[in-house]
Amino acid sequence: MSGRSGRLVVVGLGPGGPGYLTEDSRAALESAQDLIGYAPYLARLPEREGQTRLASDNRVELERAREALRRAAEGRRVALVSGGDPGVFAMAAAVFEAMETGEPAWRGLDVEVLPGVSAMLAAAARLGAPLGGDFCAISLSDNLKPWDTITRRLECAARGDFVIALYNPASRARPSRILDAFAILSAALPPETLVVFAKSVGRAEEQIIIADLANADLSQVDMATLVIIGAKGTRLIERPGARPFVYTLRRVS
Amino acid sequence: MSGRSGRLVVVGLGPGGPGYLTEDSRAALESAQDLIGYAPYLARLPEREGQTRLASDNRVELERAREALRRAAEGRRVALVSGGDPGVFAMAAAVFEAMETGEPAWRGLDVEVLPGVSAMLAAAARLGAPLGGDFCAISLSDNLKPWDTITRRLECAARGDFVIALYNPASRARPSRILDAFAILSAALPPETLVVFAKSVGRAEEQIIIADLANADLSQVDMATLVIIGAKGTRLIERPGARPFVYTLRRVS
Repeated sequence: MSGRSGRLVVVGLGPGGPGYLTEDSRAALESAQDLIGYAPYLARLPEREGQTRLASDNRVELERAREALRRAAEGRRVALVSGGDPGVFAMAAAVFEAMETGEPAWRGLDVEVLPGVSAMLAAAARLGAPLGGDFCAISLSDNLKPWDTITRRLECAARGDFVIALYNPASRARPSRILDAFAILSAALPPETLVVFAKSVGRAEEQIIIADLANADLSQVDMATLVIIGAKGTRLIERPGARPFVYTLRRVS
Repeated sequence: MSGRSGRLVVVGLGPGGPGYLTEDSRAALESAQDLIGYAPYLARLPEREGQTRLASDNRVELERAREALRRAAEGRRVALVSGGDPGVFAMAAAVFEAMETGEPAWRGLDVEVLPGVSAMLAAAARLGAPLGGDFCAISLSDNLKPWDTITRRLECAARGDFVIALYNPASRARPSRILDAFAILSAALPPETLVVFAKSVGRAEEQIIIADLANADLSQVDMATLVIIGAKGTRLIERPGARPFVYTLRRVS
């Protein structure tokens, strides 16, 4: 009945290979009794004797968070597994929503979020330093917020000359998201604004496409793409026989 | 003369203890011949036989980046060490600025940035999930950009209802930065907007202060503080005998 010995750790694997995992996250994954998460994330982890796995579909975040809290309340040591960083468009917010709206006893549980390498930071590192100035991160998913809010945020981000990272640029339900977003951004930013599509960063099929706002081929954008829109100070460094580096000047004049 | 065997890796240690370090970053630090960085970051790393250290002052980023590129061009395996994530208000942008304005041969070097856990992500994890919605990161340092730009970005971020992470909220040269920033934000946001000061996250002296915009004690903000300003959907979960969790609702109505 008592949850005092249970524990829930919310862990992010980073966007791709095991090299992104932090020491704390590795230790938490090793000591957990139950691993809960979206199936492809769990599939990245080695099987371990005596460890239970509960793989779920991607679109049931709140249910998955409740199940994790329920098991921790039963005294289990649970790791809830996200990709990237669990606090950036991933599972951590769902856990606290489940806690606030769930059993009062859940607030007394030992719950900890461990930070990880978000897709945005991993993509930026691969490119050079595109987030070298002020930046913002916007999810284009309108499952939980009105498209009007997304429009306003894109406009504000463009007006503020932020570097912009776009998460969830495509979905089966609404493939036109990225077209709508680029229409808004194109009305607010110069056509030569640098644009990067970072696909499947850290995985074997990784692909980086560099273009400008006027000429970007939006058909390249899929669900595994992180889109970065440069600011005025975002530049290319051409290199002999290699992809250019992309970085943003620290200095703003 | 040839730099073909040299290599420069730009590494972030995360904001505090060794638990934030990724596997790739640890391997890069172990295999480097030369470690270059701000002295307190190098002091966190174990001494290793045959490894050279070059500790420098905090305010000479560009010189430090040039020295790292120069050594890599001489054929050395160099690790340039940052706190947090090297791409977020840290050393990576300085490296590419040094490359673009330096020796043409530097563009042919093997240069790689490894992502890390930024102070913003670590602070957010400690709090719960305050970055659960769209968010932006703004440095309040006006060493390299006019204060007018900072003002405009704060106004745009507030108008867009972004969660806002403020880096470099104080400096010896300009202790009033955070006062000026809060004056701008207070004119644009409701007085009950949640505010968090996350000080020295991941270190023994870590301190978390939760307040609201109208009542925050700005004298608490020092150079090691990461400031988070909530959005409309940012909330507290009160807990028995513990600091409340802070999270941002995924749903925007």
